[in-house]
Amino acid sequence: MPRLKEDEETLRRLERLGKQVVERIREGDNPYFERPVRSRSNVVFNEEEGLLDLGDSKSKRYFMNIGHARKFMQSMLVASKCKELIEEERTASIRELYYQLKHTIPGLDENTLEDQDESNPVIVDLETALDSLREHLHLIAEPKGRLFGPITIEDEGDQINCLKLGKSGLGIPSMVDDYKFVEHNADYVLVVETSAMAARLVEENFHKDQNAIIVSAGGQPSRGVRRLTNILHNRLDLPVYVFTDGDPYGYYIYSVLTAGSMNLAFESNRLATPEANLVGMTMADIENYGLEKVTEKLKGKHPDESGGPTKDYKRAVELMDYEWFKHKEWQKELQTMIDEGVRVEQQALATNNLQFVADTYLPEKINSGKYLP
Amino acid sequence: MPRLKEDEETLRRLERLGKQVVERIREGDNPYFERPVRSRSNVVFNEEEGLLDLGDSKSKRYFMNIGHARKFMQSMLVASKCKELIEEERTASIRELYYQLKHTIPGLDENTLEDQDESNPVIVDLETALDSLREHLHLIAEPKGRLFGPITIEDEGDQINCLKLGKSGLGIPSMVDDYKFVEHNADYVLVVETSAMAARLVEENFHKDQNAIIVSAGGQPSRGVRRLTNILHNRLDLPVYVFTDGDPYGYYIYSVLTAGSMNLAFESNRLATPEANLVGMTMADIENYGLEKVTEKLKGKHPDESGGPTKDYKRAVELMDYEWFKHKEWQKELQTMIDEGVRVEQQALATNNLQFVADTYLPEKINSGKYLP
Repeated sequence: MPRLKEDEETLRRLERLGKQVVERIREGDNPYFERPVRSRSNVVFNEEEGLLDLGDSKSKRYFMNIGHARKFMQSMLVASKCKELIEEERTASIRELYYQLKHTIPGLDENTLEDQDESNPVIVDLETALDSLREHLHLIAEPKGRLFGPITIEDEGDQINCLKLGKSGLGIPSMVDDYKFVEHNADYVLVVETSAMAARLVEENFHKDQNAIIVSAGGQPSRGVRRLTNILHNRLDLPVYVFTDGDPYGYYIYSVLTAGSMNLAFESNRLATPEANLVGMTMADIENYGLEKVTEKLKGKHPDESGGPTKDYKRAVELMDYEWFKHKEWQKELQTMIDEGVRVEQQALATNNLQFVADTYLPEKINSGKYLP
Repeated sequence: MPRLKEDEETLRRLERLGKQVVERIREGDNPYFERPVRSRSNVVFNEEEGLLDLGDSKSKRYFMNIGHARKFMQSMLVASKCKELIEEERTASIRELYYQLKHTIPGLDENTLEDQDESNPVIVDLETALDSLREHLHLIAEPKGRLFGPITIEDEGDQINCLKLGKSGLGIPSMVDDYKFVEHNADYVLVVETSAMAARLVEENFHKDQNAIIVSAGGQPSRGVRRLTNILHNRLDLPVYVFTDGDPYGYYIYSVLTAGSMNLAFESNRLATPEANLVGMTMADIENYGLEKVTEKLKGKHPDESGGPTKDYKRAVELMDYEWFKHKEWQKELQTMIDEGVRVEQQALATNNLQFVADTYLPEKINSGKYLP
């Protein structure tokens, strides 16, 4: 029997999908299932919620359609296997799911799946058709990221005091929906781009001194990190601060955490945290903290150069086009970066001394209450 | 005051280095420091120990040599900063070290360091000159990997029961030398290539049922994972099994764990575990476990093709040349892979059922006592 409310709900949705198909077959109709269109044309920015969302366009996939039949069959296989996983209280990686479903169809010289490129999009179809998350279908992604700080989490029956995990920290799994937050003494959540900076903050006892839950993303945040940030904010009502490099890649990471990503727009409301604030690094920090000597050059060609913009410049120009970066302060930030052609890393703060980031920079920035909007 | 015996030893070595330089200056001599040559010509396979090692060639770096002076200055800067780190009981990422040391030399229009490509090789010079590990110099690398299982580790004064960390597990830090193993009830260590397979084993309670410490490498093992495997084996006398994909990349991972890597040959005795055994996947598994339908093709060109070998084939051919793979069983394994042109992933075992790997495959392989040599 499933343990989570979400599991019961997902099972109900899977069963409804199956029953609709069976019903149509019984009535002699062409069975189909319907899901939202995922192409960019149907991705919209929900201004009120502050995140990306799918629009209203839907499309149907029919069994009795030579162009749809194979995908329809695969969708039914995936749906049926996910139902089994939830009922068995197991999870599977999307790679395992592929191996579990790959077999030769009896009486035919055809495989259900040729490679994982066939099963992966079918999983996304099912997520959108059911308005669900792949984690709710018990499919897990590559885990990445760590957590440190004054919170006790119950995971698989184990109560884990995350303040008592030395400099090692808790590995953030792919699936965090079943985490129970037993108690906490945290004032906020700080998501940190690089694991080296998170290690610095832990070494300086920042999580203890500042009552901060440090989420170390280790680069682009995994689904687990994004979902965990979302539920820490929503369930515990904790403010979220994001600490990235001051460069187009860092701002993109912030963008994904706050508004969601184009490809996964249908999941933004569960994976993104629109109220998250960026505490830095920013272009203004360079002057304010005397970092002029430790900036790095942006990579690629400036928009004014022939063939430009490329690389860092291209990404910065793209970011300027995002609706949630249309605010004039963000436009100014990005334009300054492009004009000056510089980036500034979190670790550049070490130029003063190693503890500066923990005892001066972050407390100042967080307490100032002034963040890019 | 440094806490670890290693710290005291490293301080002694740093001081000796500094004193030698000062002595030569006082005597009016040209100061230098000496370190082993690291080029491949000086990398040897130590048959007795079963690991890669540096040979006896040494070279000197002089201050009063126009080609050496800048590097000499940088080496002294790095050595001096590392001494400071150890004395302050701090660690720094190699990125932070770069930012800490980068400054304009007073009276000159020259920077101590232009970019990190200058400081990184100097760090390695110092490691070899002192016959030390960068972690002993308090420099940390990107952390990666997780640990699960019946062992209590003391880290920064926190006692962590790694059997009580749910499906999240302990994040393996870059620096594990200071870990204290308080108590354990483990029969062996199992290093697992992919985090998804480690998650599978944890979900099946493999670590609990089999008294196994699971080390999830998450791909190519980090320095922390390699060092942790080494000290778990050496300090606790635990057998180590390595579970990788059956492909050239997986065997290379095994090779790095067991014999060390060419680039870091000088550290093999601290990072590698020559007694580690590969439990799979192997070419023989394909027939033994009925995996014929779920193999994948090797990528690239077969050695017999024009322009071949490339990609997977190229790596397999290279592995056949490694001295520790000269045993006829390994030669046969690699030759079979090349001849058949197939690879087999850990997760292919899911084709039977998800729990098969935990309740049948691994216990059988580990108990058989038969491993590739």
